[in-house]
Parts: sequence; C-alpha cells; structure tokens
Amino acid sequence: MNHLQQAFSVRFEYNVFFTHKLFEPSNPVFRDFLRSASGETTKKIFFVIDSGVMEHHPGLPDQITKYFSDLPSLTLIKEMMIAPGGESCKNTEQYFYEIVRAVDRFGIDRHSYIAAIGGGAVLDLAGYAAAVSHRGIRHIRIPTTVLSQNDSGVGVKNGINYLGKKNFLGSFAPPVAVFNDFSYLTTLSDADWRSGISEAVKVALIKDSAFFEWIKQHAAALANRDMDAMQYLIKRCAALHMEHIGGGDPFEMGSSRPLDFGHWSAHKVEQLSEFSVKHGEAVAMGIALDSAYSFLSGMLKEKDARDILGVLTALGFAVSHPLMDIRDGESPVLKGLNEFREHLGGRLTIMLLSAIGRGEETHELDTDTLIRSSQWVASFSSKH
Amino acid sequence: MNHLQQAFSVRFEYNVFFTHKLFEPSNPVFRDFLRSASGETTKKIFFVIDSGVMEHHPGLPDQITKYFSDLPSLTLIKEMMIAPGGESCKNTEQYFYEIVRAVDRFGIDRHSYIAAIGGGAVLDLAGYAAAVSHRGIRHIRIPTTVLSQNDSGVGVKNGINYLGKKNFLGSFAPPVAVFNDFSYLTTLSDADWRSGISEAVKVALIKDSAFFEWIKQHAAALANRDMDAMQYLIKRCAALHMEHIGGGDPFEMGSSRPLDFGHWSAHKVEQLSEFSVKHGEAVAMGIALDSAYSFLSGMLKEKDARDILGVLTALGFAVSHPLMDIRDGESPVLKGLNEFREHLGGRLTIMLLSAIGRGEETHELDTDTLIRSSQWVASFSSKH
Repeated sequence: MNHLQQAFSVRFEYNVFFTHKLFEPSNPVFRDFLRSASGETTKKIFFVIDSGVMEHHPGLPDQITKYFSDLPSLTLIKEMMIAPGGESCKNTEQYFYEIVRAVDRFGIDRHSYIAAIGGGAVLDLAGYAAAVSHRGIRHIRIPTTVLSQNDSGVGVKNGINYLGKKNFLGSFAPPVAVFNDFSYLTTLSDADWRSGISEAVKVALIKDSAFFEWIKQHAAALANRDMDAMQYLIKRCAALHMEHIGGGDPFEMGSSRPLDFGHWSAHKVEQLSEFSVKHGEAVAMGIALDSAYSFLSGMLKEKDARDILGVLTALGFAVSHPLMDIRDGESPVLKGLNEFREHLGGRLTIMLLSAIGRGEETHELDTDTLIRSSQWVASFSSKH
Repeated sequence: MNHLQQAFSVRFEYNVFFTHKLFEPSNPVFRDFLRSASGETTKKIFFVIDSGVMEHHPGLPDQITKYFSDLPSLTLIKEMMIAPGGESCKNTEQYFYEIVRAVDRFGIDRHSYIAAIGGGAVLDLAGYAAAVSHRGIRHIRIPTTVLSQNDSGVGVKNGINYLGKKNFLGSFAPPVAVFNDFSYLTTLSDADWRSGISEAVKVALIKDSAFFEWIKQHAAALANRDMDAMQYLIKRCAALHMEHIGGGDPFEMGSSRPLDFGHWSAHKVEQLSEFSVKHGEAVAMGIALDSAYSFLSGMLKEKDARDILGVLTALGFAVSHPLMDIRDGESPVLKGLNEFREHLGGRLTIMLLSAIGRGEETHELDTDTLIRSSQWVASFSSKH
C-alpha cells in the first residue's frame, strides 16, 4: 500500500504536592518547583482565582505578590483574574475568553504559567483556556476543595459547558504541577467539605475494599470535619485516581471510562437541578442507584448494597432526590444515559459492582431494573 | 518531600495514504481504513468541505454519499458543512462553533469521525473543532493543496486565529488518518500549485541537500505543473516533515521549533497583507531573507544563498515584497519577531543555514544585518 506510517509517544510527568499554607513566605514548595522547572528565560505567571476562595481569603493576591517578590526568574502578573466559583464559570464562554485575552494582553507565552486556585470548575475553566491558548500554556493547579484535591484537580481533563451540556468543549492536558494545600479545607462550607468524599467512596468501591472499610470506620470523623481523617482520605483517593490514569488510558482513546462508577445519572441530575445539586452530592446519589442496580441485577450481595448506602448516609449525603426518581422509560435521568453514550463514543460502558472493591463493566442497563433500583434507594432513604 | 509523582506516555499512530480519486467507488483505500478501525459500534462521519474544493468539484457530496452507501458499520451524516476556503475560515470563531453545533446536532461521539476536505486553513479549523468537542473526536484529513499535502495536513497541529493573531487558539491533536488525493492538484490555481513548494524547499534546505538538488533540477518541471515531479516532491517533503515530528518533540513542549526556517517573517507578512500574500508565498520570501542573513552573518557561502534565491525565482516565487522591507528597527516585520518569541515561549529560536541541507539554530538576530539582508534580497530580486 502506498502510505507513510507515523507513530510516536508523548511523555507527560507532573507532581502532586501536599502542603499547608502554600503562600506563607516560609513555605518553599512552590518556589522550589519553579526553580527546578526554570530554563534560560524569565517566565511569567498569571493567576486565576475562584471568587469563593477570595471571599474567605481576601488577602490572597497580596500574599501571592509577597511570596514571589524575591524570585528573579519569575515575573508575576500583578493583575489577577477572579472567576466566579462553581459551575457558573463554565456555563458561558465569557470567562474562557477573558483568560485568553489576558494571555494576549500580558504576553503569556507557551512556557509561562497559568495558575488556577479554586474548586474543580475554576480549575477546569482555566485548564481549558491554558490548553488551547498558543496551543498549550503550562498549567498549575491549586485545588481548594475536597473534590478537586482528591479527584478532578489531580487528573488530566479540563473543559467548559456548551449548549447546556457538561464539558462539551474541553481537552486532555496534564498540568505541570498540582499543589494540594490542606489549609483551604478549613474554610469550606459543610456541603463542600462533604461533597468530595463521594469520589473517594467511588474509587474505594471499585478498586480498594480496605479503603472502603477505612471510610466506613471514619465516617463519623469525616462528617465531623476531622482534619487528619480528611487528609488521609484525600491522599489515598488522589493516589488511586492517579494510578488509574497513569496505568490505563490517560486520554481515554479507548471506549471505556471505568472510573465513572455512579456518574452517568449524576451528570444528568446536576444539569437538571441547574447545578444546585453539587457534583459530589449527585455522585453520592449515583453511587446509591448503581449499587442498588448491582444488587437487584444479582451481581452484588444485598448486605453490601445496604452497607454502601449506610456509609453514604453516615457521611451526611442524601442518597435520593426527586430528580433521580425513575418511574418509566421516559424519566429525565434516563435521557442522561443516551447523552453519556454519545459522550463516551457510541458504546455504553457502565461500571457496576460485583463486590465491595471490585468494579465490573457492563454495556446495557435494563429499564425495569433501574425503576426497581430507584424505588429501593428511595425506600432505604425514607427509613434512615 | 510530601508528593505523588505522575508519569505516563501516550502513544499516537496514523497513516498518510497517497491515492488518486479517493471517492471513486472502485477506490478501496478509505473504506479499508474504516473497516480496519471499526470496533463494535456503528460510527458516524461528518464532512467539512472547503468552498474552494466545492467550486471545482460540485458533485463531491453526491460522490461521497455513493462511496459510503454500502458500508454498514458507518453512518454518513448526509448534511455536509461547506467552510470558506483560505484563512478567512480561521479569522472568526463562527465556523468553529458551526462545527461544534453540528457535533451536538448530529450526535457525533468521541469515536466517530470529523473528516475535512480542503486546504490547510479548513483542515486547521476542523481539526481544532474536532480536538475540543467532547475532548476530542477522531479527525480525518483530506488535504487538497500542495501545502497541506506535504506539510500542515500530515502534521499534528490545528488552530484558528484570534485577536488578529495566527493560530492563537489551537491544539496538538494527531489525526487518525490522512488521505492525500493527488487528483485534487489538477484543479488548483497556479498560485496554489506553487505555494506549497516553498515548504519543500524549506525542509530540503535544513535537512536534505540531495532533495534541494532534486528541486533545483526539477524547478522548471514543477513550475510547468508536471504531475510526476509534484507527486515525488509531496511524498518526499511529507516524509521529511513526519520524520521530524515523530523523531523530535511532536507537541513542542521544549523550546525550539527548528522546522520553522523562514517562518518568523512569513507569519507577519501574511498578517500584514491581510492574507492576500499566501502562506507559501510568504515562506518563500522568509526563506530568501533568512538565507541572505545566513550569508551576511558569515554562516553560509554567497554562492549557496544565490542558489537558493535562484531556485525560488525559477519556481515562480517573488522573493521580496514591500511588506518584507526592513529599513530600521521599527519595520513592521520586526514586530513579528517579538510575537514569534512570545508564541514560542520566551526564548527565541531561529533556524538559519550553515550549508544547503544543514540548519543551525540561533537565539538572536542582529537588526543591522537584517536590514542589509533585506536590501540584498531586494537587489537580487530586481536583477532576476
């Protein structure tokens, strides 16, 4: 055949640092990273900060300015962009273009940095803008919520919503560094503190029964904002998530997305609720539904399914919601199933459980069993 | 130190096929590719066609429809998008969003295809829209110009212009296949036929003196639209370009872009001319300028510099243009040098020549020598 073959591999490497008070003058972690990464040129750094973080830490821009004041290899862009926290920053292209225009205005080149401080949504937004400006500016993530520190912030995806669809525009673009600063966790609302725990439950359920057992033992401590327990949870969850990405198909070029246990319905509920149900809260409901389905379809023991719903409840999660109710084949959440099939690429791959700590893929969900699963969760919920 | 390390490699593979009359029912190349790539699901394919191609091949959509009529594993989206050919399709976000909305409307999933037929600009546009829709839809390129068949179309970059800057938004996203259909070359204008040859001259000058010698011997044949000569030129140039990408730094994460000989001034002239000077024409002028600079800075023999300008002239290229004139440090084209530095990432890396077939990088250009180089090219031009 008359053709030329092209084949190459691209190597990606980054560290996820765990620290406290990242911008305290005495904390060397960020400066050390920049020194180790610096080449022959002066690099710029532009900060995008979550408005939610600014509310609790109004002095942050000044702190950052001081922190970088004696680093000659770096030019800090003094003007920092404040992006509205939560999904709203991803629901319009406005903030995306605001970052892109800042790249132009401040002359941020491909080897300079865009650093984002905030929850998963602001990190997704800034990561996407960084990934496509000049075909990719170096991106640093400073996740400030449980959810972003243990899951989305340590991974390789970014994106914004478009046409009302979650992450319709986005890319796979590894950050150059992630700084998980635990001190931000103390100022989270109870809902935000709790919200990210569901991703840890998810990864434990499909990969690590000992971790699920640990969460079960520490559910009360976690619900009561015990910082040591939360730090352990975040590190373990981040490690499992990163192993999954690095050891598998980081850019999801194959057809399966096995980490997404409990997510197919969660995405739809978030959207239907106009994001008043947080991602982590929706994931807890999605885990409950898919655990019930795993039980009712004969894959999982009833005791295990009850255990899972019990742990979610002990953590403070609601396991059901009117928007999650499945009454017939036309139920709104079932529409999410088709959209998810499309987003994945044609063939549906849904992760279910054959045991605690063991995920198993399936390619079809039965509507009748889904209706019974939804009823089973609602009935569990009403008794607890 | 308290951190987790992430490290992984992502493998990319694709073939560049050389063929004639790709959509003739009897041509198996495209169908064979789709069969070999098909998995368990029916895939969709959506076509974006260059308006310039449509002008000369108005029956193309019908041909495509017939070609795919007996392929059960594929669903052809009957509605095809016509995008204006040339840089204008990249100068606004309008066509980008038109493709993204088509992805939504027709339910194009991540494992379906967006196929683009046209010149480099339309391929860049469609490649970018494909790369960020659903975080990356499979992209097929069918380049129809000399420039796209031997250079941009076989590579891994895409993009659109923003804020008047070329490729300000874009990504590195390898296609899944490239089909170089030589039959499209017969309907090109003389300017489009010629335009892409300058990229072959470029790659020959920095990598392959024997290829430059071949171009020199065949300059008249190429200028007279000899098809055999052109096919050889395209294959050799594509192979050299692909070797460079695959063997080097495909996503340009390092600081240098050594294939860009002659390009720093070319980009600026295209923009200053509002794209009335074609990319390939601008590159020919850029090659002339940088060859002159290589000579006047003592790196290259005068005979070689004259040879290069002679070959460009014999191919029908203008080697100078009022917009390329450098009279002082404020000359418009010098502004391009700073923009290029920014786009590259801080440190300027310019390729010059130490001999025909041997590129050599430098990190500074001297303004006085640039002024003399510009004069030298103008004086050569006025005598030939």
